[in-house]
Amino acid sequence: METLPPNLARRRLLAGSAGALAAVGLGATGAVCATDAVANTTATKAAPAAKPLPAYAAWKDADSVIVHSANTIETKRSAFGDGVITPSRQLYVRNNLPPPAASVLDDRDAWTIEIVGVEQPRTLTVGDLKALGVETLATVLQCSGNGRGFFPHKPSGTPWEVGAAGCVMWSGISVRTLVEYLGGLKGKPVYMTGTGGEVLPEGLDPMSLLVERSVPREAMQDAMLAWEMNNEPLSLAHGGPLRLIVPGYTGVNNVKYIKRLAFTDEQSRAKIQQTGYRLTPMGAKSSPDQPSVWAMEPKSWITAPGTDGQALKAGRAVVRGVAFGGMHAVKRVEVSIDGGKTWKEASLIGPDLGKYAWRQFALPIDLPAGQHTLVSRVEDTAGNVQVEKRFENVRGYINSSWQDHGLAVNVS
Amino acid sequence: METLPPNLARRRLLAGSAGALAAVGLGATGAVCATDAVANTTATKAAPAAKPLPAYAAWKDADSVIVHSANTIETKRSAFGDGVITPSRQLYVRNNLPPPAASVLDDRDAWTIEIVGVEQPRTLTVGDLKALGVETLATVLQCSGNGRGFFPHKPSGTPWEVGAAGCVMWSGISVRTLVEYLGGLKGKPVYMTGTGGEVLPEGLDPMSLLVERSVPREAMQDAMLAWEMNNEPLSLAHGGPLRLIVPGYTGVNNVKYIKRLAFTDEQSRAKIQQTGYRLTPMGAKSSPDQPSVWAMEPKSWITAPGTDGQALKAGRAVVRGVAFGGMHAVKRVEVSIDGGKTWKEASLIGPDLGKYAWRQFALPIDLPAGQHTLVSRVEDTAGNVQVEKRFENVRGYINSSWQDHGLAVNVS
Repeated sequence: METLPPNLARRRLLAGSAGALAAVGLGATGAVCATDAVANTTATKAAPAAKPLPAYAAWKDADSVIVHSANTIETKRSAFGDGVITPSRQLYVRNNLPPPAASVLDDRDAWTIEIVGVEQPRTLTVGDLKALGVETLATVLQCSGNGRGFFPHKPSGTPWEVGAAGCVMWSGISVRTLVEYLGGLKGKPVYMTGTGGEVLPEGLDPMSLLVERSVPREAMQDAMLAWEMNNEPLSLAHGGPLRLIVPGYTGVNNVKYIKRLAFTDEQSRAKIQQTGYRLTPMGAKSSPDQPSVWAMEPKSWITAPGTDGQALKAGRAVVRGVAFGGMHAVKRVEVSIDGGKTWKEASLIGPDLGKYAWRQFALPIDLPAGQHTLVSRVEDTAGNVQVEKRFENVRGYINSSWQDHGLAVNVS
Repeated sequence: METLPPNLARRRLLAGSAGALAAVGLGATGAVCATDAVANTTATKAAPAAKPLPAYAAWKDADSVIVHSANTIETKRSAFGDGVITPSRQLYVRNNLPPPAASVLDDRDAWTIEIVGVEQPRTLTVGDLKALGVETLATVLQCSGNGRGFFPHKPSGTPWEVGAAGCVMWSGISVRTLVEYLGGLKGKPVYMTGTGGEVLPEGLDPMSLLVERSVPREAMQDAMLAWEMNNEPLSLAHGGPLRLIVPGYTGVNNVKYIKRLAFTDEQSRAKIQQTGYRLTPMGAKSSPDQPSVWAMEPKSWITAPGTDGQALKAGRAVVRGVAFGGMHAVKRVEVSIDGGKTWKEASLIGPDLGKYAWRQFALPIDLPAGQHTLVSRVEDTAGNVQVEKRFENVRGYINSSWQDHGLAVNVS
């Protein structure tokens, strides 16, 4: 949990288990802590004990998800389905802080956002934004720590495997349209900085908790302020009434409950930006000179068959999965049933929702009896190939290793 | 209700109101009757009284739909949202017969379908189909009678306005792949005929009730047997475990609970094919020599602003809507705010999901105070333009009139 001062994290861990903290309710610091406690106690291959869905995400499909904590809910690998858009009820949840009160959804159009760093800075309501324009965009939404569960050093943080990711559609107004409406950018800012509207607990340095992320200004070209996800008003669990969508960038950069969008010369001073979400080499301490966790890399994984834990029968089968390029479109996907010794090119199927979406792939094969490891490897249109091995880093971010994401199956 | 013999319809109408029939449960004939009774009592502009969702569709979003009867549920015009895919919870329902028992979903992969009219006719399970291939396809699903509520002669049948339609994604196996696997077509059949697996009530001529539809053989080129809708296992309400999808054809041709797929020289002998779903001229009786209700036509309607019944404020607004070509892709959409006197071209927005999907359109405008009628008109890539006036026919099918679909708004 990147926003939590180390001493506070330690104190909470001493105070009780994640379960006990969840039981006393979702006070801000309690919920923040729960994430860390889970990370430190269950970062193994063992299935987490089934926990109830938290109230703000009670509408999720309990059978499709793994509840790690009140703020971290993972999609099961077997629940991605054969289609391209992840249904909202199956989509993962990862909140850095507890969401604002549900009452912020009572009058969605009244939610305000301040825009600064433009020629005509203004505070606008969601209702105002809706009168300016509308776009729809499909993106892969993936937690920075997706795949963390495969790091052998058990980094702190939720031990996600494949399921802190989904492909969803957003509707809202493009940041470009908004900036044009406000007279264009003022000067030549280096960053686009979004500030979340979570309620911060009293008595702590706000900068230690504030969810405020800066991304390179160029990211504004395809960015959006979204009021709908998958064609429904954006839920509280996913950042409603309004969320900043930064296509190609990891989840944390897609700031929820966005209250302020600034074009700035410096990165945010918030801890989540300064030392949080950095690719810190093993043995080092997080610091602002290390790369920030921004753009996603080419990645793919297999979603069927055999992900439901059932033994497979030898014979014809169709290996299916999802693949994305991060910042570029998918060019091709290869599949191996022998752990990467030999490869065959899969077909890309289904509608192409644009370069920031994932593609479905499928390969009909004859599956022989025995133990096999199914793996997939994607190449993007810029020639980047999914890496074989993860980049080791302290917090276990951006694990795109095809080897780590292999699926062991038992065929009889 | 096309499957019901006229004398039976009359008898049921004498037996009680739709509400009374619904109250005694969803026995096959009771539910069949409910549809007709509703059609004959509420085919007006008046909002139907709020009815509860039937058990098999209890998971629908009650706020987004109008329950006409247990077998006919409409999406509100204000509930289409700003995105392109209609969420399953908002999608309309129209069943010709009550669905099979929910237990057919207990083991989805065990559901069987018989394929005949191919070189190697076989009965296959859904599990077998999943081992052959997978595709994903977006289509407009639209009831043949969508827009019936605008016919002034109040045809029998549900008085749908715009909401017996949606754009959804299907995953399954393409009929072409399946036919190739079975050695190809036998001879040169003229039709593809799908048979539904509903349980028929005893004591009646099965041909008077059987849901069996024939479409021209060419439709098989893009057809699919689908086991998922919107990336979730296909629900009972929408035809699960397996449904025939015939892209570009009205809903009834997309046979639910499909048990048999035949390539035939003749059209089905079922009443639903022979005299049901025919474009019968006013004053005539339904007969097999009249055009069958098959392909959809270019059609569009406005979904915002002002569809929620609230008064609008003068000033900048974005007119939004959906448009489709039926058998061809959308080329362009025009919008008028003066009931069709003057037109402006709207922008097509969002991902293009293929020629059988609908497109979203948007036009930012300055909305003056006063009473206005907002209308839209689509042209497809083959040069077909949405018709101004409906084609009058006894049962009120295929209403694509842009005039009928206008939206009156009050701007202050």
